[in-house]
Amino acid sequence: MNDVFLRACRREQVEYTPVWLMRQAGRYMDDYMKIRRRRSFLEMCKNPEIAAEITLQPVNRLNVDAAILFADILLPLEDMGYEVEFTKGEGPLINNPVRSGNDVERIRVLPEEEITPYVMEAIRLVRKEIAGRVPLIGFAGAPFTLASYMIEGGSSRDYLNCKKMMWGAKDLWHELMSRVSRVILNYLRAQVKAGAQAIQLFDSWVGTLNREDYREYVMPYSKLVIQGLKDLGVPIIHFANNGSTLLELVKEAGGDVIGIDWRINLDEAWARIGYDRGIQGNIDPAVLLAPRQIMEEKVKDILNRAENRPGHIFNLGHGVHKESRVEDVQALVEMVHEYSRRA
Amino acid sequence: MNDVFLRACRREQVEYTPVWLMRQAGRYMDDYMKIRRRRSFLEMCKNPEIAAEITLQPVNRLNVDAAILFADILLPLEDMGYEVEFTKGEGPLINNPVRSGNDVERIRVLPEEEITPYVMEAIRLVRKEIAGRVPLIGFAGAPFTLASYMIEGGSSRDYLNCKKMMWGAKDLWHELMSRVSRVILNYLRAQVKAGAQAIQLFDSWVGTLNREDYREYVMPYSKLVIQGLKDLGVPIIHFANNGSTLLELVKEAGGDVIGIDWRINLDEAWARIGYDRGIQGNIDPAVLLAPRQIMEEKVKDILNRAENRPGHIFNLGHGVHKESRVEDVQALVEMVHEYSRRA
Repeated sequence: MNDVFLRACRREQVEYTPVWLMRQAGRYMDDYMKIRRRRSFLEMCKNPEIAAEITLQPVNRLNVDAAILFADILLPLEDMGYEVEFTKGEGPLINNPVRSGNDVERIRVLPEEEITPYVMEAIRLVRKEIAGRVPLIGFAGAPFTLASYMIEGGSSRDYLNCKKMMWGAKDLWHELMSRVSRVILNYLRAQVKAGAQAIQLFDSWVGTLNREDYREYVMPYSKLVIQGLKDLGVPIIHFANNGSTLLELVKEAGGDVIGIDWRINLDEAWARIGYDRGIQGNIDPAVLLAPRQIMEEKVKDILNRAENRPGHIFNLGHGVHKESRVEDVQALVEMVHEYSRRA
Repeated sequence: MNDVFLRACRREQVEYTPVWLMRQAGRYMDDYMKIRRRRSFLEMCKNPEIAAEITLQPVNRLNVDAAILFADILLPLEDMGYEVEFTKGEGPLINNPVRSGNDVERIRVLPEEEITPYVMEAIRLVRKEIAGRVPLIGFAGAPFTLASYMIEGGSSRDYLNCKKMMWGAKDLWHELMSRVSRVILNYLRAQVKAGAQAIQLFDSWVGTLNREDYREYVMPYSKLVIQGLKDLGVPIIHFANNGSTLLELVKEAGGDVIGIDWRINLDEAWARIGYDRGIQGNIDPAVLLAPRQIMEEKVKDILNRAENRPGHIFNLGHGVHKESRVEDVQALVEMVHEYSRRA
């Protein structure tokens, strides 16, 4: 098996820098669009054969060093009792957002064995079909990110309802976060037991908080999830999008590898996080649309900043844009492999 | 005259920390809505009497230490030959965005005397009506922010067209930025000559860039604007929204006072910028919707971080949300004055 990714997660010496890409399966790929045109997004996620097939598409096309399960961070919301709808263009909508204490009390915390069985089946299928070529990453949204969807009823620009609850109804906030965290933990434990070989926790929207608010209202819950996975022995990647000012606390919340976006230079971020953790990132996904020469300069710059230090996993600073071309994504993966190969 | 704000901009000792709020005139205020209901946003901006009246509303209601001209950063685009439309809910749209070299060549650079005369008339009216109570701040969008609207045709999440031009058509990008900067400079010089006593440059969207791209593609143009204002002798506030990773370069681009958003702690930001500059910020505007006790804690925290050092101007980290209540905004201003008053 190509275990370069897993070894890098453990900060072992590797022959070259492993690379995978957030949203490496998706609309930029014709293989994906062939399936997408005939089915809704939710149908694709809920059909284990299709989810497995899509998970494998980038492995077959891109030569990446890890697969990541095709799924959506909002899938567990349905099992919690929330109605999620994926509208075209508008992003996800939650039809019954959290507005009061009753809404928090109705959050169901399903045990590991019962949560989104179709996701677990997809994981088992991928592991079978991937036949050891590369490891499979499972994932979930982090507590703040999931809570923000549940409270705002969808994506948000300013997270005003979220912050109003956080500051104005602390007990309710903590009860909500506690339930959400337990769901996420059960969901991720089930993924590992089904065969996920590493886990990424996505805190996509936490960049709206400053350090004090993150520390008080969010960190304990992300920590709870990460510590609750420890006994399973798989590496955890903790990604806080737009979180440059939070890095020290993101590390404190936990994770073997800290994921960073492109706004911060990788060397500075790693120095602040400390070399006792791996780092994942961090090229601007828009670079996939740049001329090759620019792409090359930026790949080299990031590899230089990582200084061949063990524990670097190359990735984008955010998901692949749908405007990207497959040949450019392939070129990026190839560049990372080529320029990082140890003599 | 209450010149606490201007003295703080020059880092002189002041009796208390001056405060004004980005978007302090706006939809959260009934006085504003009375006018807004009968007129389009653009009509309000283009009518000097109305723009002056709206500029003065927060001065009359909030006890802030500065007025900021009621206007929109996109107003100069019309004089450049671009058609701007303010749609309800969707934000501004530019009907003829920059797509090619021809679009760049058609950007008109009007001289100081000819650019948006209605804005200059509004400034003269405000200065007359404000009768020296507080100083008046003029403002403009920074070159990157204006260019991003012109290229994307409106606001954007990923700035892909912008980055494609930046990396893929460098000459075009530099020609565009050069023209945009000259327009901004002329626009701001005209504002000062009409009576603006300080200037804020808003780089609202520059947080999408990492440091290397900011340095190469943006910094020279922001610098050109700021240096081109030097001989007029008014203080310049340079605000780079979501720019925590860019602060050292934002300082290098210039500004007597650097504006910061709420994601970074003020003491750290100031230490990185250096105490040879003032600092403006930086409470989360969502705090206006929090209980008073939280607001109080957060105001005190920011004042403590500023350590009574000369050169702090209190502000939000971004504009007032329309969901805010006037009495809460008044309370914030009062708290800043009260807690910062020097014995």
